[in-house]
Amino acid sequence: MKIVIAVDSFKGSLSSIEAGKAIEEGIRRVYLNSEIVVKPLADGGEGTVEALIADLNGKLRTIKVAGPLGEMVDCCYGIIESKTMAVIEMAQSSGLTLVPESKRNPLYTTTYGLGQVIKDAINQGCRRFIIGIGGSATNDGGIGMLQALGFELLDEDGKQVDFGALGLKQLKIIKTSKVLPVIKECDFMIACDVNNPLCGPLGSSYVYGSQKGANKELIVQMDKWLNEYAILSKEICPLANMNYPGAGAAGGLGFAFLTFLNAKLDSGIKLILQEINFEEEVKDANLIITGEGSLDFQTTMGKAPIGVAKLAKKYNLPVIAFAGSISNDANICNNAGINAYFSILRNIVTLPEAMNKERAKENITNTVEQVFRLWKIREDHI
Amino acid sequence: MKIVIAVDSFKGSLSSIEAGKAIEEGIRRVYLNSEIVVKPLADGGEGTVEALIADLNGKLRTIKVAGPLGEMVDCCYGIIESKTMAVIEMAQSSGLTLVPESKRNPLYTTTYGLGQVIKDAINQGCRRFIIGIGGSATNDGGIGMLQALGFELLDEDGKQVDFGALGLKQLKIIKTSKVLPVIKECDFMIACDVNNPLCGPLGSSYVYGSQKGANKELIVQMDKWLNEYAILSKEICPLANMNYPGAGAAGGLGFAFLTFLNAKLDSGIKLILQEINFEEEVKDANLIITGEGSLDFQTTMGKAPIGVAKLAKKYNLPVIAFAGSISNDANICNNAGINAYFSILRNIVTLPEAMNKERAKENITNTVEQVFRLWKIREDHI
Repeated sequence: MKIVIAVDSFKGSLSSIEAGKAIEEGIRRVYLNSEIVVKPLADGGEGTVEALIADLNGKLRTIKVAGPLGEMVDCCYGIIESKTMAVIEMAQSSGLTLVPESKRNPLYTTTYGLGQVIKDAINQGCRRFIIGIGGSATNDGGIGMLQALGFELLDEDGKQVDFGALGLKQLKIIKTSKVLPVIKECDFMIACDVNNPLCGPLGSSYVYGSQKGANKELIVQMDKWLNEYAILSKEICPLANMNYPGAGAAGGLGFAFLTFLNAKLDSGIKLILQEINFEEEVKDANLIITGEGSLDFQTTMGKAPIGVAKLAKKYNLPVIAFAGSISNDANICNNAGINAYFSILRNIVTLPEAMNKERAKENITNTVEQVFRLWKIREDHI
Repeated sequence: MKIVIAVDSFKGSLSSIEAGKAIEEGIRRVYLNSEIVVKPLADGGEGTVEALIADLNGKLRTIKVAGPLGEMVDCCYGIIESKTMAVIEMAQSSGLTLVPESKRNPLYTTTYGLGQVIKDAINQGCRRFIIGIGGSATNDGGIGMLQALGFELLDEDGKQVDFGALGLKQLKIIKTSKVLPVIKECDFMIACDVNNPLCGPLGSSYVYGSQKGANKELIVQMDKWLNEYAILSKEICPLANMNYPGAGAAGGLGFAFLTFLNAKLDSGIKLILQEINFEEEVKDANLIITGEGSLDFQTTMGKAPIGVAKLAKKYNLPVIAFAGSISNDANICNNAGINAYFSILRNIVTLPEAMNKERAKENITNTVEQVFRLWKIREDHI
């Protein structure tokens, strides 16, 4: 029997690989000699760099870049030399969690740091980019990133515009003559699991502005500024499409990637499964194990375990999931390809107790053991 | 597929039958048309009356009897007319939980109430008795019960001795001439899961005296009084054996049952499984489900789920258990016949939340559903 384990990180507790190894240990207690393959898993969000580095033998690189408010932050990204590839989580340079709640205001928050990371990776020899763009603090249409890469986004006086949505307000001219030439050789794959257009009631300002700290008035203004930015962009890039699904992702960063960097947007889990060659492992497997910290209705919305389940179903393989917490609406996961799912909780504990690394590993291993004991019953008894 | 469900009560939350029905519902979500039999389960402790009443179509009867300290208490016991049988939990008349902690003192606590219950049941036509003797507040050697049934336990002045171990101290003469004659027709089956002798370091005073409120000095005295009581008893009943396993159960109540009422002591779960004809259901089953509120090391010490598992193993049947809480030492249950066990917990909750009746039912049903989805995988896939 060949079993492939690909479980998302248990956020705040275990990495994808740690959780996967704990599952493997539980299986080994029942099936000592099975072929078990542990693959790392991520959906483009937190843990994506760690997962791809682990599977593709990459390395981490930490640099100082401008944070969301222009202050310097440490940003860690991954380089996979064999693929001349960089793996970047934009939340590490321009993420909402980097901004104290009292200072959250998309009028000022910028994606400039993300552009710096890309530039650094280019200097390190990278030409392919996997970039997860979830968790942004910004609504600047990606102009900060473009500036860092040599684009000129100028105000009426011909000066580079300010950081943040404020820059969109000032923006009058976009020039591309000073863009890093090597950008043309670069291939950007953006892990994006939302379909929002750039503007309008489903656009980035209206849907995500509030959680990034904008009040109603600012939301209306930002939506207008992004619209003007899109019109201006179309003059330079005739194919610019503000309504393309995902253009409104990460405060319009999706639009900048699509329009100026010829990026492809795809579901995070799909991109990552491709990169780790997951399908090759699945082809000759008998059983697939997945999971994540919390299994619920949202799991079916493009999250990693469902991506794994979809691929497994292509080969008609059973899928079992393990999770730290399971909500009452999780049964929708059964319809989405997860044949059966199990919580690793075993007794009454607090959340910090449950998330304790050693306890979580032990709970996973012990629960998996019982599930595989059940699995084995049918060999022994029936 | 025939599935037999026999799960102990989830104490403080669900009765055996309620838990069993919740399990059945979970199975039906996957196997709509399987033959499913829900049997009640108990181990002689709390829930025994309810379980046997439910399975054997009995009725409850509540009467007022003397509590452990002589005060009147309501005692509820079961009558199964078709078997002329009474089912009694001694903890309901003479239990430790009936005595406030500050008043716990085996010098004064009596089993008189239990004798009154037996007498009432006899008057109701009962001739067979199943009596669970766990949870007693007493260390009176069962003399209170004997007095209620007409035995004369007299002091040096020929007066009935006082309640409690104090009565043992006063005891000089035992007379049987006024015992209810019908007692001879009665058949007493005592659910008893301890093996303590009446006296000595493993006897009732030394092992259980302290938790019933005795200090060290009293423990030493009570042990001596019980010894004298045993010697006196042997003059009347030559077969009296103070070292018989279980003679020291329930503060020497075991000795009184054995010596004066010709009772049989047996493991609670074994007695109950016999009475509900459990083996008949198991014989042609394919799978047995059991469980209890808390699955741990102690489960293997004669508790109900292991009794079920043992019987299942006689027919080489797989056994799956469900529990509210599972301790880390529960894996010993795997060696004791439970092939696989599962916690019904699904997310972080407090104990009162977990024990909420509706939530507990829902958690059971949802967990069982996933386990049977897993069970079914092997039909569908392999």
